[in-house]
Amino acid sequence: MIVILKDNPDRQQLDGLIRWLGDQQIEVHPTVGVHQTILGLIGDTSRIDIDLISALEIVEDVKRVQEPYKNANRKFHPDDTVIRVGDVQIGDGSLTLFAGPCSVESEEQIVGIARAVKKSGAAILRGGAFKPRTSPYAFQGMGDEGLHLLLKAKEATGLPICTEIMDASQLPLFEDIDILQVGARNMQNFALLKALGKTNKPVLLKRGMASSYQDLLMSAEYILAGGNPNVILCERGIRTFETYTRNTLDLSCIPALKTLSHLPVIIDPSHAAGKSALVPSLARAAAAGGADGLLIEVHNDPAHALCDGPQSITPKVFDALAPQLRQIHDLVRGEQTDVIIR
Amino acid sequence: MIVILKDNPDRQQLDGLIRWLGDQQIEVHPTVGVHQTILGLIGDTSRIDIDLISALEIVEDVKRVQEPYKNANRKFHPDDTVIRVGDVQIGDGSLTLFAGPCSVESEEQIVGIARAVKKSGAAILRGGAFKPRTSPYAFQGMGDEGLHLLLKAKEATGLPICTEIMDASQLPLFEDIDILQVGARNMQNFALLKALGKTNKPVLLKRGMASSYQDLLMSAEYILAGGNPNVILCERGIRTFETYTRNTLDLSCIPALKTLSHLPVIIDPSHAAGKSALVPSLARAAAAGGADGLLIEVHNDPAHALCDGPQSITPKVFDALAPQLRQIHDLVRGEQTDVIIR
Amino acid sequence: MIVILKDNPDRQQLDGLIRWLGDQQIEVHPTVGVHQTILGLIGDTSRIDIDLISALEIVEDVKRVQEPYKNANRKFHPDDTVIRVGDVQIGDGSLTLFAGPCSVESEEQIVGIARAVKKSGAAILRGGAFKPRTSPYAFQGMGDEGLHLLLKAKEATGLPICTEIMDASQLPLFEDIDILQVGARNMQNFALLKALGKTNKPVLLKRGMASSYQDLLMSAEYILAGGNPNVILCERGIRTFETYTRNTLDLSCIPALKTLSHLPVIIDPSHAAGKSALVPSLARAAAAGGADGLLIEVHNDPAHALCDGPQSITPKVFDALAPQLRQIHDLVRGEQTDVIIR
Amino acid sequence: MIVILKDNPDRQQLDGLIRWLGDQQIEVHPTVGVHQTILGLIGDTSRIDIDLISALEIVEDVKRVQEPYKNANRKFHPDDTVIRVGDVQIGDGSLTLFAGPCSVESEEQIVGIARAVKKSGAAILRGGAFKPRTSPYAFQGMGDEGLHLLLKAKEATGLPICTEIMDASQLPLFEDIDILQVGARNMQNFALLKALGKTNKPVLLKRGMASSYQDLLMSAEYILAGGNPNVILCERGIRTFETYTRNTLDLSCIPALKTLSHLPVIIDPSHAAGKSALVPSLARAAAAGGADGLLIEVHNDPAHALCDGPQSITPKVFDALAPQLRQIHDLVRGEQTDVIIR
Repeated sequence: MIVILKDNPDRQQLDGLIRWLGDQQIEVHPTVGVHQTILGLIGDTSRIDIDLISALEIVEDVKRVQEPYKNANRKFHPDDTVIRVGDVQIGDGSLTLFAGPCSVESEEQIVGIARAVKKSGAAILRGGAFKPRTSPYAFQGMGDEGLHLLLKAKEATGLPICTEIMDASQLPLFEDIDILQVGARNMQNFALLKALGKTNKPVLLKRGMASSYQDLLMSAEYILAGGNPNVILCERGIRTFETYTRNTLDLSCIPALKTLSHLPVIIDPSHAAGKSALVPSLARAAAAGGADGLLIEVHNDPAHALCDGPQSITPKVFDALAPQLRQIHDLVRGEQTDVIIR
Repeated sequence: MIVILKDNPDRQQLDGLIRWLGDQQIEVHPTVGVHQTILGLIGDTSRIDIDLISALEIVEDVKRVQEPYKNANRKFHPDDTVIRVGDVQIGDGSLTLFAGPCSVESEEQIVGIARAVKKSGAAILRGGAFKPRTSPYAFQGMGDEGLHLLLKAKEATGLPICTEIMDASQLPLFEDIDILQVGARNMQNFALLKALGKTNKPVLLKRGMASSYQDLLMSAEYILAGGNPNVILCERGIRTFETYTRNTLDLSCIPALKTLSHLPVIIDPSHAAGKSALVPSLARAAAAGGADGLLIEVHNDPAHALCDGPQSITPKVFDALAPQLRQIHDLVRGEQTDVIIR
Repeated sequence: MIVILKDNPDRQQLDGLIRWLGDQQIEVHPTVGVHQTILGLIGDTSRIDIDLISALEIVEDVKRVQEPYKNANRKFHPDDTVIRVGDVQIGDGSLTLFAGPCSVESEEQIVGIARAVKKSGAAILRGGAFKPRTSPYAFQGMGDEGLHLLLKAKEATGLPICTEIMDASQLPLFEDIDILQVGARNMQNFALLKALGKTNKPVLLKRGMASSYQDLLMSAEYILAGGNPNVILCERGIRTFETYTRNTLDLSCIPALKTLSHLPVIIDPSHAAGKSALVPSLARAAAAGGADGLLIEVHNDPAHALCDGPQSITPKVFDALAPQLRQIHDLVRGEQTDVIIR
Repeated sequence: MIVILKDNPDRQQLDGLIRWLGDQQIEVHPTVGVHQTILGLIGDTSRIDIDLISALEIVEDVKRVQEPYKNANRKFHPDDTVIRVGDVQIGDGSLTLFAGPCSVESEEQIVGIARAVKKSGAAILRGGAFKPRTSPYAFQGMGDEGLHLLLKAKEATGLPICTEIMDASQLPLFEDIDILQVGARNMQNFALLKALGKTNKPVLLKRGMASSYQDLLMSAEYILAGGNPNVILCERGIRTFETYTRNTLDLSCIPALKTLSHLPVIIDPSHAAGKSALVPSLARAAAAGGADGLLIEVHNDPAHALCDGPQSITPKVFDALAPQLRQIHDLVRGEQTDVIIR
């Protein structure tokens, strides 16, 4: 951490600051210039509240040098985290396909789609039982009944289930669910993150629409610091001025997050695009960019889906797309790590 | 609602759509051009799922003409909503000042600040007991004990209390709290919004960092549709590319939200700016722009505040600012409504 | 175009509007609802000024149905535009690699890099002679001398040259240059666009940092409407709140722009990332996403480059990357058009 | 400037860097920690190219401590810059109103509006002769003839003229124009900025839609470094995800830019809002926030204006608004400087 002092700082306040830092095992190295004095802070600054120092009258600015996250930081955990869900491994260098409908609608629908996507190569079934909807008048998901039908689809196909949890109070309902998804709108629902940190369930944590990589990793840190090491990061588009797409998919996050962190990175092209015609191009791009997996909405009848229909592709399109994603993945697999990770 | 069809739409699908809309009491008026056919939909379209129609193969695009919110819509509720909290009225044309520290730290601190801001003209005491912090290692607030100290400050000064609730499960703790604040990060925590809709407590709903006016009004709609009419909208800055300020305060929201809705609009210049030196200018601007109130962080010792210190002003600065805000408000009070509201 | 009228519109104004539209060969089809009247406008609305209609007292809102660009619109030009530069074809389904340093620094440097990238498979040499720099104190490029050295590199290798023009007055200097690049900061320098429209030189038009797809296509339209059909679109990152990368590369633009327009789409991963370690991942993603080409900064000594060093990769990295990009391109080549273009 | 080194930096490269910096009169003060070594750079770093240092293999990150602009920096020029245009002074603590139509349309129109706004208290007439329009098919302004009519309006009323220049080649036409406006889309047209730096005309420099405060000040620096001290900064809204307003007016820029720089700050609420109904509220807010002036579109017949009609207010609304803006300004005038400027 670097502290930039104002001109002619009050001597007494400065001594107070240096003493207070010393109490927290932080060494202070000053650099005195004509116009400016800079303090270099050496030690574990992740627990120092940057706002407290900024607030001092003698301080002009404070800049972090070290990342404020530790458990999620590749510097302290150089090896890739691999998440195990049944026979599936996420983050081991393979490409894991999560596929399924936006919402569970009926047993026939979810079991049918599960069978289709499994045949095409999906490793995880995804589908919503509890749906966060902008409008209180929109379909809110089937709830408990939806979870029940997802488990029937698991029984029928063996595919592990990934579905969204919206509130810490729902945890008991999710006991048999394999991967708990935290939606973009809940990425900083800290009550929920803390509750998930106390479980040992794999958590798929979606990046918020206005969240930086650091914000995402700090939210992961909440779960990791609670004792649960099983966090999967998921990019699903950020909010920008462009309105043709629902959100702007930020594929730079793949090399960036894999440099900053050891956690697996999954891409959801469906929510970002908001238009099914864009999904195959973005899915291929994500596979080539080095993603550990993809989360793709697949629906047998998108025109009648109860929510998010326009962004779903059909099982037929998925069946053509999946092998191509694998081929791309095989091409880039080795190279990826050599070039990106320092 | 306007449905734009693709060239040469399948006749059967089109008839199906018209029939399905008719079942929902929506009349369809087609306009046939050389290159394009457009359907004008007449009726209550707020309950029509725009995604369902977009998903149809014959549809190129769908555009809403009517707003998707009803309870929050000025068109259907032309009179301003006035929220009553004890003797205080919010939204009646007056300027309500909410003031207090970011976090409750001790009885002495909170009672001291409460007395100071009351003397300067604040009508509501604000202060955090449960604090949403980006880092799991940062101070998370005093919790229950903080709520208890806020109530002591109310006892000492008579000021109603506004403080943040982070999770629906905390509701019982907030029984004696006057105004429940929903933070920007929880603006689309729909479980929380639904729970608040079932109370009759005034709710101060902060706009999310990446939320449009419509998103904010849809979140208000969740609370209103649940039966609780007491919603106060609060702008606290949106996330943009500018990094000098923590967030970009969007004061256009005042005339915009007051045109679109009948709910009171409060401005929080402290969180947006992130720097106390910017707060007085922004507070004056908000008062002149026609805000119904201001939420201002005031701390007797910002340099030692346990969180968000840099954005707090001192009681002395607040004492000079408050009367000026009233003078500005008095100047613009009458004019405002004439010019803005159609 | 759809015009949404206010309640009880003045009859005389409405008749005036309908007459004025009729004079411009636009038919008007009204849809009358209980709360709202909507006018459907049929005809060539690309020349109608949407602002003029919005300004009328009787009008609540106006929404475009048709895109405001014609020459750049795939609807009216279904076949892909192919740009020929010497033996190189851009937009014919192949992957064209543009490579070279940010700035020309010396004959030895530019000829050396040109030879290296040609050997690795680049088809076009890119390099800056005139450099738009945020700071007046930063290196502004070698100017005329830089153009001269680029032409020497062309002589030595046969590679066509792509370099940036900053002002219409520079046109005579660019007579022998093959592709004129318009930088992101000049995307809406309309004086420059008009001047380029009067040449028949291929123009590589970079998307502005805050420009939507439509804005980009409207700027292309300036050149096309001037009579020059040779426009190449280039995405180089948009400005968002994320600061880890210099800009956010928006790869959704590939399927989006190729759906909306017939012009070739090139991706520049180097400027967007601002960090060379991210470039290979993004380049692979762009190739898999269906780009017609890539613009990659390559420098033999990035640590001593006079500008933009951190985003340059070395010839050695480029040499390993280029064949991989071709392999990815070969994999996706056929599929791409089937799935994306309707 | 702070240079953060990677672990175990190569000794030879490090010595090279320190020597290179020494050659440019920069002293280097290292701080050695267990995990990290930091170099504090002391001296005039505004001419050091940050990208050059970032590119070195031994460097992890570089952070600026000093602003990269000198002439525009309040630290080196503590007194407010006052721009004199005839009898008008901008930046002397008064509130200067610039008013007039978006486009000049006829002598009758521009003289009529000039007379009206002068009577209401405007000090400067603004109006467009050359108009930057997104569409090549939209009205592009009257050009030379428009400039001529503006000068007729000056003759009739004595009001100095502010109008937009779009290209350096137009400079001779602007000889009699009092204030040259640089539009948001041209804020980084460096050829134009350099040309303006060689004149001594007052320049009204509009902030780009995706430009930070620092970018704006760097563009001002281009003009100042060229020898022209007469720069007026103008905020007109930035591009965000919110679509209800055309752009998001960022009023935090007033205290921010006045802290960072000595140049006057003018606010244009009309372009930002894009809707005339929002203009009075934003204008009042800007006056209360401490702006040195306002740029307001006023049109006698907004419904028939040839461009930007929806954002124009009528002379009647302006006549009611102007005195109120003065009253607000008088209220805040003294206080402003005490609180904001350190």
